[in-house]
Amino acid sequence: MCTAVRIKTRNTYFGRTLDWDFPYPCEVTLTPREFPLDFRFESRCERHSAILGMAYVKEGYPLYFDAVSEQGLAMAGLNFVGNAVYEKPSENFCNVAQFELIPFVLSRCATVKEATALLEKTKVTDTPFSKDLPPAGLHWMLADKDESAVLEVVHSGVKIYPNPVGVLTNNPDFPTQLHNLNSFMNLSPRAARNNFSEKLSFREYSRGMGAIGLPGDFSSQSRFVRGAFAALNSVCGDTEEESVGQFFHIMDTVGQPMGSCQVAEGAYERTLYTCCMNADKGIYYYTTYENRRINAIDMHRENLDSASLVRYPPIVDEDINMIN
Amino acid sequence: MCTAVRIKTRNTYFGRTLDWDFPYPCEVTLTPREFPLDFRFESRCERHSAILGMAYVKEGYPLYFDAVSEQGLAMAGLNFVGNAVYEKPSENFCNVAQFELIPFVLSRCATVKEATALLEKTKVTDTPFSKDLPPAGLHWMLADKDESAVLEVVHSGVKIYPNPVGVLTNNPDFPTQLHNLNSFMNLSPRAARNNFSEKLSFREYSRGMGAIGLPGDFSSQSRFVRGAFAALNSVCGDTEEESVGQFFHIMDTVGQPMGSCQVAEGAYERTLYTCCMNADKGIYYYTTYENRRINAIDMHRENLDSASLVRYPPIVDEDINMIN
Amino acid sequence: MCTAVRIKTRNTYFGRTLDWDFPYPCEVTLTPREFPLDFRFESRCERHSAILGMAYVKEGYPLYFDAVSEQGLAMAGLNFVGNAVYEKPSENFCNVAQFELIPFVLSRCATVKEATALLEKTKVTDTPFSKDLPPAGLHWMLADKDESAVLEVVHSGVKIYPNPVGVLTNNPDFPTQLHNLNSFMNLSPRAARNNFSEKLSFREYSRGMGAIGLPGDFSSQSRFVRGAFAALNSVCGDTEEESVGQFFHIMDTVGQPMGSCQVAEGAYERTLYTCCMNADKGIYYYTTYENRRINAIDMHRENLDSASLVRYPPIVDEDINMIN
Amino acid sequence: MCTAVRIKTRNTYFGRTLDWDFPYPCEVTLTPREFPLDFRFESRCERHSAILGMAYVKEGYPLYFDAVSEQGLAMAGLNFVGNAVYEKPSENFCNVAQFELIPFVLSRCATVKEATALLEKTKVTDTPFSKDLPPAGLHWMLADKDESAVLEVVHSGVKIYPNPVGVLTNNPDFPTQLHNLNSFMNLSPRAARNNFSEKLSFREYSRGMGAIGLPGDFSSQSRFVRGAFAALNSVCGDTEEESVGQFFHIMDTVGQPMGSCQVAEGAYERTLYTCCMNADKGIYYYTTYENRRINAIDMHRENLDSASLVRYPPIVDEDINMIN
Repeated sequence: MCTAVRIKTRNTYFGRTLDWDFPYPCEVTLTPREFPLDFRFESRCERHSAILGMAYVKEGYPLYFDAVSEQGLAMAGLNFVGNAVYEKPSENFCNVAQFELIPFVLSRCATVKEATALLEKTKVTDTPFSKDLPPAGLHWMLADKDESAVLEVVHSGVKIYPNPVGVLTNNPDFPTQLHNLNSFMNLSPRAARNNFSEKLSFREYSRGMGAIGLPGDFSSQSRFVRGAFAALNSVCGDTEEESVGQFFHIMDTVGQPMGSCQVAEGAYERTLYTCCMNADKGIYYYTTYENRRINAIDMHRENLDSASLVRYPPIVDEDINMIN
Repeated sequence: MCTAVRIKTRNTYFGRTLDWDFPYPCEVTLTPREFPLDFRFESRCERHSAILGMAYVKEGYPLYFDAVSEQGLAMAGLNFVGNAVYEKPSENFCNVAQFELIPFVLSRCATVKEATALLEKTKVTDTPFSKDLPPAGLHWMLADKDESAVLEVVHSGVKIYPNPVGVLTNNPDFPTQLHNLNSFMNLSPRAARNNFSEKLSFREYSRGMGAIGLPGDFSSQSRFVRGAFAALNSVCGDTEEESVGQFFHIMDTVGQPMGSCQVAEGAYERTLYTCCMNADKGIYYYTTYENRRINAIDMHRENLDSASLVRYPPIVDEDINMIN
Repeated sequence: MCTAVRIKTRNTYFGRTLDWDFPYPCEVTLTPREFPLDFRFESRCERHSAILGMAYVKEGYPLYFDAVSEQGLAMAGLNFVGNAVYEKPSENFCNVAQFELIPFVLSRCATVKEATALLEKTKVTDTPFSKDLPPAGLHWMLADKDESAVLEVVHSGVKIYPNPVGVLTNNPDFPTQLHNLNSFMNLSPRAARNNFSEKLSFREYSRGMGAIGLPGDFSSQSRFVRGAFAALNSVCGDTEEESVGQFFHIMDTVGQPMGSCQVAEGAYERTLYTCCMNADKGIYYYTTYENRRINAIDMHRENLDSASLVRYPPIVDEDINMIN
Repeated sequence: MCTAVRIKTRNTYFGRTLDWDFPYPCEVTLTPREFPLDFRFESRCERHSAILGMAYVKEGYPLYFDAVSEQGLAMAGLNFVGNAVYEKPSENFCNVAQFELIPFVLSRCATVKEATALLEKTKVTDTPFSKDLPPAGLHWMLADKDESAVLEVVHSGVKIYPNPVGVLTNNPDFPTQLHNLNSFMNLSPRAARNNFSEKLSFREYSRGMGAIGLPGDFSSQSRFVRGAFAALNSVCGDTEEESVGQFFHIMDTVGQPMGSCQVAEGAYERTLYTCCMNADKGIYYYTTYENRRINAIDMHRENLDSASLVRYPPIVDEDINMIN
């Protein structure tokens, strides 16, 4: 379904895969500072941080899948079907429809800390965008240069968790994912050692044997463990190129090739797109299943004081460099 | 270490990852038909099939890691340390030094069948290329449009196995890899079913649960299983772009991000390059750890009747497409 | 640590292993109907169901680890360290010290349903038995002829869950154990099938390959899955001998041999005792680590209207039958 | 199918489980010194070491499943279907029918070393015992007070391997089992440690987490790993009672409860019997699926100079000790 990851080198990088069995009509979309943000319950926001991310623009409104603000707060929504339980609007709370959560948070908050404080007094409502677009069952990962957090709206209400792992996938809920990770604490990026028995000598027949037991399937719990292993053990230089390149390598470990996950006759989940946002610089990098070359949009190359959405149509063909 | 894969769509695609902890000085190299191939034991070959692949060119001689001939036979050498046992030259056999095996086979044979027949009467010798370049412990995967095979030179001699899986990694030997794969026959690209007990109902909390148990670490045995799962279940269109794109997605499941496999203090194995050869068309596609955009060299755009190697220096920087 | 299991044949059988690294001074103990049960908060119970189980008798009071009542309600306490959070006594609730929970429930309730109703209005308090005996972090499994349930007292209060699996071990909490079990739904007691790929044929090199992936270690989460697999797939005749024998075979799959779980230098967890209660007939069967022959006590062979505890000193030596 | 184990305390203990889906008509059988052993190819042996073990006595001939000699050499045959390839008799070799292998070796050799030397010049033939009893596909484990070995007769001939693990199960062949064990070298009987990432703290939610990854299913490869873990990490006192008790606890980890391995409609593999031989003292201990109490036969309580088999009919009912 999806995996979100945050890593730090000199800058902070946050991104996600979006896995599904049919394409979504999304495009990288810039919401500049003067684009008026209407909310269903809260008052209109006339001026705000610029927001850049992947969105489905519907009736002029950017339904963001993930985005970063010019202040360096990033956020992504990931499938959480069966566990997400949205609420009814309630007095004494901020009330935000599920579909407007990303622009709501990114327009009001500069940091994860601010977002946490805001969300603690917020009801996330099940208000649909339209009759055709019922609310999606999602949970969210937030990230800035200092930390990461997870927002879940479940049966017992809004929950905000610090995310020391810097990874989010889908079901089960985040506390259960954290519990499950404990079972893998023995795994190591270093060579295997003989802990089995001193009475026997073992042969290290391959590099990488210290991580035997790491799950390799594409279920959400397994991607959480595998993504955490790659992200927490990541080693790379701190230039922009190295960092971005490394981010996509991490995401490759949780990406889904077509055919490995059949969801119905003839329907196969695969990684529709992968993105990486430089949260400090407001640059959105992405690849698609059809085109592995990295495309990039830098919000600071646009007029951020505009009032109109800027939309970048996706580049859909494999962009191969023919050398001869 | 390495993973080789063969898949078929309209054409046949064969390629490999090369994983190591420090860069090799290799470059895509075309050996045209008139480039004289000298062998240590066998007579010089003045004219032969053109060969395109990744090579370390040393003293004017192309030491191929992997290559494809214009006749559509492809071959790659993969680490097989501790199991490879080369032989001494022997009368009544063809005698070939380990390092000249790829040009030897590709210059003499048009198919896996022909290569098999040739190798059955061949001794693969431990003759070093030079004092500085002792023989590497390798085994080889061969592929053409009809089939795939594995060549191993072990304690009991030269072994050639048909390869119905179309995957090769490193240790253990190929028969043991095939045996090991049996343990995973229950895994499925389809949804998990309740086979556990009719007395209980289960919840399919995620897509992809049918493959729980697939190994996710980077040891050679685990990469074999994971690569086989992705390759054998691969679904894609049969255009050149779709096929090549899909091939690299399959390879992403066995690629190694830097940090996940530490081989010594400060030394990390990662996927130095990944290649995909269209065996029918003689095109060599590759990406490197530093640059995920696909580069390509088409042998048929060169003068194949030349007598000089053509070398394509690697493109080492992340080739990002800045959209704005 | 511990595993509890309930199975049904003609009768209902419930029992548990108790795993620890040093012996407990426990003995099978019968609390007859007239033995006065004093409680810390609730009023003395002068007459009640007879109770038979394993207990540490301290100052004349039976601290039960597990027991069955003559009405067929059985209950066992299992380690739940770190998750058990006991409460303070509260008006409008029944208040029961953790250590008196088994006699409290078994003396007042005849069924799991009655126990559930009672416990829903109960506070389980952290009152220590004595200065030397602080409350143990436990959770409980209950069973009768119709159903099974789990009682956990956690941060958010008393929780009672129906237990369709009929197994309990230790951490994590029961809902997380149930979630985790979903990941194993593909495993089967039947032969492995090829779900991997139709392009390949596989060899069923052994019986039992349908359950590859079943965890074999002694952690509580793994014992839960393994115990569930053995219990839910159990097949046996319905005589008393066959049923009891089968119950101990199921428990053997979660029993711990000395040496496999080292908890400190020279300290090894092993299965101190295993018991099986016929809930319908009030018979307590048990084995110890030192003696695998089954010993049995039948409550109906005692005077149940007595007012004195009856204690059966454990049989500690391996009771081997020398045939010649 | 079967698991054989050898451990040492003050004495040497060797034994096995026999798993199958229907009972075998076997009984503990003593072959005394003067019982004449006829062989199909080799000359009759009039006097030899006494042999005690489990056998199917057919037409007065003891077809041993496992046995120990008075000299302390023990041997067991285990299923090896599909891999066992027996030979034709050949001059210049000892020729022994597969079914007479145990009495042949135990009557001629006092140690594993002697047996190894004998078997290296032996052909194990496919001669059937009778028309109704074709040769079974087996391999064998041998043990004495100093060492253990495995005998396999495969496509490439008789193979004798030292067995440093002290465990044998069934397929695949022993070298592949040894290779496979390497993949588990990281597993530990001690607590789990955080090798995953220093950036994260983990919770050891259970004892025994150091061995997470140990396989728990009943396939032969998984039983090999699990049996090796229990046997090599075994800790116990060195009295006869403690040693024998511990041996059966080790075997419990590889024993099969009825229902967990269904081989056909209504047919379930389970552990028909488990035995433990004190190789130094010539005592045969065993339990059956139906009776977990240990029965024992001590060869030195019989007249070993007899010429007649002594047979001990199995004790088939659960031998429960009713305490009250």
